[in-house]
Amino acid sequence: MRHFLTTLDYSRDELQGLLDVAARMKAGRHDKTLEGKSIALLFFNPSLRTRTSFELGAHQLGMKAIVLEPGKGAWPIEFEDGGVMDGEPEEHVREVARVLSRYVDAIAVRAFPKFQRWEDDREDKVIRAFAAHATVPVINMETITHPCQELALMLTLQEKLGRTDGKKLLLTWTYHPKPLNTAVANSALIIAAKFGFEVTLLCPTPEYVLDRRYMDAAEEMAQAAGQRITVTHDVEAGYRGAAVVYAKSWGALPYFGRWAEEKPIREAHRHFMVDRQKMELTSGGLFSHCLPVRRNVKVTDEVLDSPQAIHIDEAENRIHVQKALMEALLAGASAGADRAK
Amino acid sequence: MRHFLTTLDYSRDELQGLLDVAARMKAGRHDKTLEGKSIALLFFNPSLRTRTSFELGAHQLGMKAIVLEPGKGAWPIEFEDGGVMDGEPEEHVREVARVLSRYVDAIAVRAFPKFQRWEDDREDKVIRAFAAHATVPVINMETITHPCQELALMLTLQEKLGRTDGKKLLLTWTYHPKPLNTAVANSALIIAAKFGFEVTLLCPTPEYVLDRRYMDAAEEMAQAAGQRITVTHDVEAGYRGAAVVYAKSWGALPYFGRWAEEKPIREAHRHFMVDRQKMELTSGGLFSHCLPVRRNVKVTDEVLDSPQAIHIDEAENRIHVQKALMEALLAGASAGADRAK
Amino acid sequence: MRHFLTTLDYSRDELQGLLDVAARMKAGRHDKTLEGKSIALLFFNPSLRTRTSFELGAHQLGMKAIVLEPGKGAWPIEFEDGGVMDGEPEEHVREVARVLSRYVDAIAVRAFPKFQRWEDDREDKVIRAFAAHATVPVINMETITHPCQELALMLTLQEKLGRTDGKKLLLTWTYHPKPLNTAVANSALIIAAKFGFEVTLLCPTPEYVLDRRYMDAAEEMAQAAGQRITVTHDVEAGYRGAAVVYAKSWGALPYFGRWAEEKPIREAHRHFMVDRQKMELTSGGLFSHCLPVRRNVKVTDEVLDSPQAIHIDEAENRIHVQKALMEALLAGASAGADRAK
Repeated sequence: MRHFLTTLDYSRDELQGLLDVAARMKAGRHDKTLEGKSIALLFFNPSLRTRTSFELGAHQLGMKAIVLEPGKGAWPIEFEDGGVMDGEPEEHVREVARVLSRYVDAIAVRAFPKFQRWEDDREDKVIRAFAAHATVPVINMETITHPCQELALMLTLQEKLGRTDGKKLLLTWTYHPKPLNTAVANSALIIAAKFGFEVTLLCPTPEYVLDRRYMDAAEEMAQAAGQRITVTHDVEAGYRGAAVVYAKSWGALPYFGRWAEEKPIREAHRHFMVDRQKMELTSGGLFSHCLPVRRNVKVTDEVLDSPQAIHIDEAENRIHVQKALMEALLAGASAGADRAK
Repeated sequence: MRHFLTTLDYSRDELQGLLDVAARMKAGRHDKTLEGKSIALLFFNPSLRTRTSFELGAHQLGMKAIVLEPGKGAWPIEFEDGGVMDGEPEEHVREVARVLSRYVDAIAVRAFPKFQRWEDDREDKVIRAFAAHATVPVINMETITHPCQELALMLTLQEKLGRTDGKKLLLTWTYHPKPLNTAVANSALIIAAKFGFEVTLLCPTPEYVLDRRYMDAAEEMAQAAGQRITVTHDVEAGYRGAAVVYAKSWGALPYFGRWAEEKPIREAHRHFMVDRQKMELTSGGLFSHCLPVRRNVKVTDEVLDSPQAIHIDEAENRIHVQKALMEALLAGASAGADRAK
Repeated sequence: MRHFLTTLDYSRDELQGLLDVAARMKAGRHDKTLEGKSIALLFFNPSLRTRTSFELGAHQLGMKAIVLEPGKGAWPIEFEDGGVMDGEPEEHVREVARVLSRYVDAIAVRAFPKFQRWEDDREDKVIRAFAAHATVPVINMETITHPCQELALMLTLQEKLGRTDGKKLLLTWTYHPKPLNTAVANSALIIAAKFGFEVTLLCPTPEYVLDRRYMDAAEEMAQAAGQRITVTHDVEAGYRGAAVVYAKSWGALPYFGRWAEEKPIREAHRHFMVDRQKMELTSGGLFSHCLPVRRNVKVTDEVLDSPQAIHIDEAENRIHVQKALMEALLAGASAGADRAK
């Protein structure tokens, strides 16, 4: 049994295998290869694409998806071990993960950071706890990385560019009125490095550089592929020659929990918005974004409505890659498998 | 590809065709004529019947329905074009409609008015924006009209009355503690006119007359059918001779956003409640209401529990007409059809 | 047609029949014996296990489950008859139950007490109103009893103990920071008595004894089985010799609506928490709990993670017993059956 918590646990070949299956599923019809199986989708945060693509994708494979919202329709959950549970949570992940493992064949979890202390958030405790206690595969629907989005991005780029090695991908920070999760930025960085892109990270100041875990992993994968990771705060240098511009906003790690102090830096960099002038510096570069995206804040209408924009294709590909993923993880597994233990 | 935003876009013959299919579906078994297809149900407002009848009706046709609640489980959405999105909405309908069109074969939307300015609400921007940007059929689950309710009402009246032409239908305003949507009132007016009823609109004062768009359309359809639309504020005149009494409460259009000023007029007309005495003025008239209905506020228990009340039948018929509608709209379409563009 | 509101309406033989079917379903594959049927799941309160096990169990039988949350996604509902509905509720259970009966083949309801006056709560008005007005079977998903949990508990105990007659079951109150529903306590008491256990109820003071209706019923069933019900406030006496320890927290009935007055009593009995020392007083007793459970408040980690703990098995068994129940209630019924009336 294998979880899907981060692509760092998977080789490029393994991920390419998933992308190849996804491409075949996209081209062909729906085979109900997981008939009779089921998946619980746990949302601690809102979702449109993730929910629709998982619920519908599971259905197309013959599965039943159950959507649960802990703290809203379902009971709030505790994740720390050994404590006296006299606060809000009514039950512990030990019970939740084990019980769900009896009902369903997989558990998918969306759990954003708390945004108080990055040192806490970077431990990714919620999904790690599910993985520790579940007896069925656990899938990351976005925590501090967003590996399903990574697969969708790579499928889309392979569709548009063919082989990706040696091409330049710009990962650019953009303004957003609120500090956001670094998950998609972390994910874009490591998946682009893994697939041989020459990655440039463009952000306002050194404080917006991503967590060392992902920077180091990307550097290591880039070197293995004969490429490199470049960090820049120079907009023109970032865009020049890019084959792909991938935009995302995120909060600077040193300011977690002290957002009032970050606000002036953030506000001073509204001009990082992706626009036509910047895109013209690229080599006819493609534009994408994970969605949701705020128009004329992160990216102009002009870019989003141009033929270079492939964000709708990337969103569509979520369903295809996730179907390939569920098939890979669940072909052999079954709910209640731990009963005999 | 065709949307279903208002019955004003459909001829009487087309609508009768849907009603005939619905009647056959009601009589017979569930044929899975839309196997493998899917629909997204977007609820910006609460629902009991609409949600149950669409989700179950889709399932009976072999489809998968995905329920989304923007602003609750899903991200809040922007509908105005060209603006700088630095407010609450995290994404634009341009992205939402296009992405959903890749996943599902139809998009159904419930979006009530904002109740601040009728001049804004009457533009029906939310569903019009979905229709403009979706590449699959869009279905109105109640905005400023409620066309699915219209079909259910007509199927029920045809079941009970046979041919409807020339019969008198009273559409009566009733008291409700809050100002409500005019959607069902608009809808009852235009569908009754289209199907040849002689329609009387009974309301407290001229300020409760419905929007000119619907009054004019009804008048035109009535004339084409050799009938007429009568507006009255005289309760006895309204009920006398009616074959059908259809009750609904709504807020007066001139008072949108200034509800404190409307309140005294509303409160002074609590006696518009439908009761046995009023029903006795009709020609053995049937009673119906779209639901939800407040007992002993809009209608007495006595009327709702009488054999003349057909509101439960009308509610049941929602599922049959919506199945006929989905079949008509989707028999040829398919998700992702815009991919080649 | 038969409802499933409380196990008091069913004989031991009837319930054993359900358990036998459930055990066969657990051992075997999923037969779609209710293909084409449907069930509405109405949640007035949160749920994890109940929702997952009903929604998935229905699916495994070939049914479609529709999840509704009145007051959240669906309209708030009135349950009192004859009143003027000018408060919050937008519709009456008379309409809701009758309309849903047209759409679906069964209605399941979770409706916790209001916790203001036990004299009101004990009438179980919400589910009784659904049962009175629905024309399809109504299933209790926890109101003031939790009969589905009873079946799951008994299936689990029969799996572990074989024949249960004459064995000692301790039902122990535990501390919880909030006063909770007595439903599961009532249920454990009556189902254990029905299946021939010698039941001991351990609680802090006489004020925590359960409602006379359930105490009397348990006493009567115990006598019929040659057993007895013992109430004690002595922890050691309670645990000694128990074959099963079933833990639950609940609010004392005399303090409903005056919880500040109960708080000191509650706080003074934190030591009722189930721990290893207490479990060692039993005859190698099993431990269970209905979940959700607060670790180190109601029960220690040590007990919950020990081989004696069977709460995960009990949770799993929810799906099996509920499938057996739905099959028993729905094998012959069908939605819209009241149409001809």
